[in-house]
Amino acid sequence: MENIEKATIETKINTNKPNMITNTSNHLLDLDDLSTGDIETIFSSTNAMKEILNRDIKKVPALRGKSIVTLFYEPSTRTRASFEQAGKILSADVINITNKSSSVEKGESLYNTVKTIEAMGVDIIIIRHPHSGAPYLIARNVKASVINAGDGSHAHPTQALLDMYTIINHFGSLKGLKIVIVGDILYSRVARSNIIGLTKMGAEVVICGPHTLLPTELLNNHSLLPIITPFNSVRVETNIEHAMADADVVMALRIQLERQSTNHLPSLREYSYRFQINKERLNLAKPNVLVMHPGPMNEGVEISSDVAHGPKSVIEEQVSNGVAIRMAALYWLSSPKRLEA
Amino acid sequence: MENIEKATIETKINTNKPNMITNTSNHLLDLDDLSTGDIETIFSSTNAMKEILNRDIKKVPALRGKSIVTLFYEPSTRTRASFEQAGKILSADVINITNKSSSVEKGESLYNTVKTIEAMGVDIIIIRHPHSGAPYLIARNVKASVINAGDGSHAHPTQALLDMYTIINHFGSLKGLKIVIVGDILYSRVARSNIIGLTKMGAEVVICGPHTLLPTELLNNHSLLPIITPFNSVRVETNIEHAMADADVVMALRIQLERQSTNHLPSLREYSYRFQINKERLNLAKPNVLVMHPGPMNEGVEISSDVAHGPKSVIEEQVSNGVAIRMAALYWLSSPKRLEA
Amino acid sequence: MENIEKATIETKINTNKPNMITNTSNHLLDLDDLSTGDIETIFSSTNAMKEILNRDIKKVPALRGKSIVTLFYEPSTRTRASFEQAGKILSADVINITNKSSSVEKGESLYNTVKTIEAMGVDIIIIRHPHSGAPYLIARNVKASVINAGDGSHAHPTQALLDMYTIINHFGSLKGLKIVIVGDILYSRVARSNIIGLTKMGAEVVICGPHTLLPTELLNNHSLLPIITPFNSVRVETNIEHAMADADVVMALRIQLERQSTNHLPSLREYSYRFQINKERLNLAKPNVLVMHPGPMNEGVEISSDVAHGPKSVIEEQVSNGVAIRMAALYWLSSPKRLEA
Repeated sequence: MENIEKATIETKINTNKPNMITNTSNHLLDLDDLSTGDIETIFSSTNAMKEILNRDIKKVPALRGKSIVTLFYEPSTRTRASFEQAGKILSADVINITNKSSSVEKGESLYNTVKTIEAMGVDIIIIRHPHSGAPYLIARNVKASVINAGDGSHAHPTQALLDMYTIINHFGSLKGLKIVIVGDILYSRVARSNIIGLTKMGAEVVICGPHTLLPTELLNNHSLLPIITPFNSVRVETNIEHAMADADVVMALRIQLERQSTNHLPSLREYSYRFQINKERLNLAKPNVLVMHPGPMNEGVEISSDVAHGPKSVIEEQVSNGVAIRMAALYWLSSPKRLEA
Repeated sequence: MENIEKATIETKINTNKPNMITNTSNHLLDLDDLSTGDIETIFSSTNAMKEILNRDIKKVPALRGKSIVTLFYEPSTRTRASFEQAGKILSADVINITNKSSSVEKGESLYNTVKTIEAMGVDIIIIRHPHSGAPYLIARNVKASVINAGDGSHAHPTQALLDMYTIINHFGSLKGLKIVIVGDILYSRVARSNIIGLTKMGAEVVICGPHTLLPTELLNNHSLLPIITPFNSVRVETNIEHAMADADVVMALRIQLERQSTNHLPSLREYSYRFQINKERLNLAKPNVLVMHPGPMNEGVEISSDVAHGPKSVIEEQVSNGVAIRMAALYWLSSPKRLEA
Repeated sequence: MENIEKATIETKINTNKPNMITNTSNHLLDLDDLSTGDIETIFSSTNAMKEILNRDIKKVPALRGKSIVTLFYEPSTRTRASFEQAGKILSADVINITNKSSSVEKGESLYNTVKTIEAMGVDIIIIRHPHSGAPYLIARNVKASVINAGDGSHAHPTQALLDMYTIINHFGSLKGLKIVIVGDILYSRVARSNIIGLTKMGAEVVICGPHTLLPTELLNNHSLLPIITPFNSVRVETNIEHAMADADVVMALRIQLERQSTNHLPSLREYSYRFQINKERLNLAKPNVLVMHPGPMNEGVEISSDVAHGPKSVIEEQVSNGVAIRMAALYWLSSPKRLEA
């Protein structure tokens, strides 16, 4: 990350076409597969994609004649539409396939579905699946590229990339920033991918939420103590005020309302009282703190409306950057190196 | 409307490309927002669009690089497909988003959904929503153009435009025509938008149906008497035979079968007996009367099958003109004037 | 079929563009409508389409400016996606319309739906419908081309074409081959269309399955005896080992699990025991036997996993050829001859 200061990124912008990228892997499954160089390359390409998105005619022929399938086993509006928009702007053909979880059988059946899609001549399969690891099973068995668009509570790499990119756009770098992630860490694929990516790029991550929604391996062994990850440090905090102190970025996660009936989540009222990102708590952070949320928001629960739509919120920027990041990811997976491999 | 005689329209056809249109508004929400000049401009462009639709290769680059989202909170086959066809012929990218009413929360949530779609770089949002006024809430808050594809019982402007256009194609003008709208006026967004548009362009509108399905403000204050609207006159009739006398156009509305359980609608048998557009009643109208229906039809209820598919029916013409009108509307909203604004 | 030896087909490949095809019919409803010459023409075009599918940029302008609607009244992932992929590679605009069976009314309503779609300027309507014969009703009433993508237990012509094409790709011809179709023959549109097509092209077809799932007219009148069809012979076998002897091709049909509750199907365990295509049974066939399945498979029921994914399986080839066959079919229906008719 040392070399990816904002100025450097900007000089990499090529407003006429995305930078030529060489990709040594077929797939985008999670951020632990990516080197910091890979991530920098994708971010550099994202700058070019953002410029395309802002054109009056948002269309480049980069992926003309490529076909993309979105294969979603969980309902999704925004992620699916974001990928579809990204693919179409790059002139790819996009086919949407939705499967209700209920009609999906065991592993082998998913395998056959994906082999069938591959046999149709599809180049990139974008999959969302309720089972952690499902995209890995697929990736091992197809020549098509696989993008993980969210698997269970495991990973959501394009969300983490767009979050990281959005922060870099404001601060120039992730290095040394204090980033607080608040909410249901235990079940959040967004949190997990962000923790890997952010620490890899030099940020300090603090996770905060009710004990029952924090990863137990962290709590049991290192409760309230810094943990050295392969990359950097993750700190656990159960007191939101402590967590917010001097934060550069605060990321509120969506509370999944269906967890209320289990014992994982206190009442929504109690959750809001203890962990909602609101104006008072935001005042504990640095003055230029960024407020983020992966969406869709439960306003009044994990985040107050005034903060969600306030001057420190970059939530809509995240969505815009999401299309650009996905364009870059699709382009990266279609790069010549891969096609020759 | 004085200047939009059929001959004039025809001389405006430009078979190579749609006329250049300057649009002073961002949105198409209902016909009361449009001046007669706006409507004439759209109709003139529709002529050009019809010519494109009849080509062997139905494709022009007018909206290349623009992206359109259809956001439908109510089920729809024909309106959504008509817009999708219109957008694709103009080379726009079209993304479909469907939400079941049940999963939609309150106003703020719709607001967030639409802000998210806008942030993805979408140029035109086509929305259908069960709540009257929902598209207005959206239009006030986005820079993207919004088209109302039906909101509750409020408005359905592209349907009214295609109806008006279809009539003009046969009679050259709407001025002085007697147009009878029969059925569930009270809950019909089609009727409401047509009444505004038709009277604005100089037609005389007669609405007819059971007392319980007529707008009470008309019945209470002016029962069976002419009402002067800002534009022209609307007359209420509860006797279908009186209504049909000397009609130039009769428009049968779809009876929404789910209303049967309420007290608004008599039995279907009684409704058919009293208000069905059938051969005998059609004989009371002018010899060259046009029969219209916005679809989908309940044949044998609000309209008899022989009339629906008879020589006076222009119901399929309405559908064809619907694609052309929607092409014109999309083009109008993308015109240079708007983009500079 | 005499002239369609493999060498001949290969010399017909035109790698730059599909062969010019003249089509005398508007529709593709079942294989009994097609002459052997029609079938040879489609197969020849399919060779060209396969070459396009294997290009780095899979896109040709053959159907640019044409619009295609997929109208599916039954759930389908693979057939719909295969047609969508085929249409998009040929640059057509594809609009998907899905209707739950439950919301579909009687014949006239389907008629109106299709007339509406046609009025939108759609060139090709691809329909799947639970009622046998539904596509015929439509075809009689529209000028658009109709492709039957499966109607009840009647026909599925593109599936049969892709099956036949796959076999020819391996053996050069269908003439004299012994092709065994195993499973629920009675309710299988795949079996029915294959029987017509395969016998027309000179193959010998053996159908095998439980008595209750075989066509009774065959069993009652000709049980276990050869039947002379207009084209060739179909033989009925209830003993799988007899059926498999010296087979060139064995085609396992999907067991429709919902039939288990009726009296048509023994328990799945008994079905597997008596009719599953497994390694032992495959050893009874010729050494270079091909194993086929129209998908989706119930592995472990009608076919064992090792056979489904073994060296004799051409199941993925079927899927790939399916896209090419559908490209050829779409192209055939859009050929100049038809457009002039």
